[in-house]
Amino acid sequence: MTDGPAAKRQKASTPDEAPYKLIYWPGLPGRGEHVRLAFEEAGVPYVDGAKQEDAVPQVLAQISTDNLAEGIVPNLPPLAPPILEHGDLLISQLPNILLYLGPKLGLVPGDDANAVYRINALALTALDGFSNEVHDCHHPICTSLYYEDQKPESVRKSKLYVKERLPKFLSYFERVLHAQEERKAGSWLYGASLTYADLVLFQCLDGTAYQFPRAVQQLKDAGGHKRVFALVDAVRARPNIAAYLESDRRLPYGEGIYRYYKELDVVLEDSVEEEKKE
Amino acid sequence: MTDGPAAKRQKASTPDEAPYKLIYWPGLPGRGEHVRLAFEEAGVPYVDGAKQEDAVPQVLAQISTDNLAEGIVPNLPPLAPPILEHGDLLISQLPNILLYLGPKLGLVPGDDANAVYRINALALTALDGFSNEVHDCHHPICTSLYYEDQKPESVRKSKLYVKERLPKFLSYFERVLHAQEERKAGSWLYGASLTYADLVLFQCLDGTAYQFPRAVQQLKDAGGHKRVFALVDAVRARPNIAAYLESDRRLPYGEGIYRYYKELDVVLEDSVEEEKKE
Repeated sequence: MTDGPAAKRQKASTPDEAPYKLIYWPGLPGRGEHVRLAFEEAGVPYVDGAKQEDAVPQVLAQISTDNLAEGIVPNLPPLAPPILEHGDLLISQLPNILLYLGPKLGLVPGDDANAVYRINALALTALDGFSNEVHDCHHPICTSLYYEDQKPESVRKSKLYVKERLPKFLSYFERVLHAQEERKAGSWLYGASLTYADLVLFQCLDGTAYQFPRAVQQLKDAGGHKRVFALVDAVRARPNIAAYLESDRRLPYGEGIYRYYKELDVVLEDSVEEEKKE
Repeated sequence: MTDGPAAKRQKASTPDEAPYKLIYWPGLPGRGEHVRLAFEEAGVPYVDGAKQEDAVPQVLAQISTDNLAEGIVPNLPPLAPPILEHGDLLISQLPNILLYLGPKLGLVPGDDANAVYRINALALTALDGFSNEVHDCHHPICTSLYYEDQKPESVRKSKLYVKERLPKFLSYFERVLHAQEERKAGSWLYGASLTYADLVLFQCLDGTAYQFPRAVQQLKDAGGHKRVFALVDAVRARPNIAAYLESDRRLPYGEGIYRYYKELDVVLEDSVEEEKKE
């Protein structure tokens, strides 16, 4: 892209009031959804490139092997969406975008310079356990193969995910919330009010429950992670989030990070069967 | 951990001159190695908990399901190491630790408030492609299973990694370096001097070359990613890094992120064979 739109858009600085734009694939929530939820909760306007007619060309122009981000020094070309444009700044990598937006959208407490590092750690951990690993349950061998070409491996990984990993990550966030309760800090993951880490955990568990509805229900019924599931409900009930989830801006899950395949909708007992076979 | 050492260590603030301590598993470079390289390049003293006699108990105390980080408000309990202690601050998640250390160690240029977001995106991308995915090549099904219990899946994933993913990520960083060259910004990934993203890319590719020596050599010989391999050599030749790599502080690879298994030491042609079988 030697003289595309980005080249013409060079600006000297990024004032806070510059418009925000998300560049992302159309037609599914995906990893871009975390960015949308941050804007929606904050009530801050944003342009959703995924909803524009040229959504796909927008993404392709950025990730093209020809894109050298010319004319928008010192931005660098991104590998993959989601991508955030804010004035002359263009950045990629979901946890990085949230890190940038958090303080600007009031989703990081402003009274402690180190808060953002604690919140970033929570967001990275939620994405590791409830987004990256869940995605890999339907693509354990390679993202460039079809699901159908890695189905036996997906079934095996899903059984072990549900037995080992899902409870491990749920227990971790339950422990964080328990720590918060012990120090009478409230029922959010960090500090006295909602941060973007809470939004990330909500979206992660909403998606994980879509892919593994039986296992998530089983763990919910078992009652060992009450604080985590209460937090998910509390985020869902926030007025701006509730309105967004009801709107047609919220897209249904499909062929993205979170997918429903009947043969992957396993419960804890299925992994015990799996181990007996070995 | 209700009244362990952490509880006694409560402090009011984190002055820059407070001692830095890495808490990590002993006996292997692992993800902690990226933190060591940052300190070594900067020439800033740090305590390496992994080299202390009680390294394992230090880690276990942090990741224990009983650890509620009591008494060190507002830190939160971490899920896993590496963990950084700096005065009263305790944070986990490798890219988050580097984000915190980067500006303090002079590994992020100080003249642009947005530089850290561009560098963080580079570090996250390098870790995605050359650390997380490389690890998953020997643990594609579950980290809690032995390698021996997921060997066929590992062979299949490794072949596809070498064919699809390794060139994709190498080409991405080659593109970033090409962009830098076009704007006459130098031969580092960001700006005119070395940043922690360069150190991360070095360690990632050093480890990937340990796990996949034949494939990395093959791609190096093919000549399509000359800027990336030149950067790796340039980092390796930095005086402080060279001295560190020669020292006994640098541990050999073993049973960590990067592992050598003969059957996974594949070349590009092996994946073509794999596809023909299907």
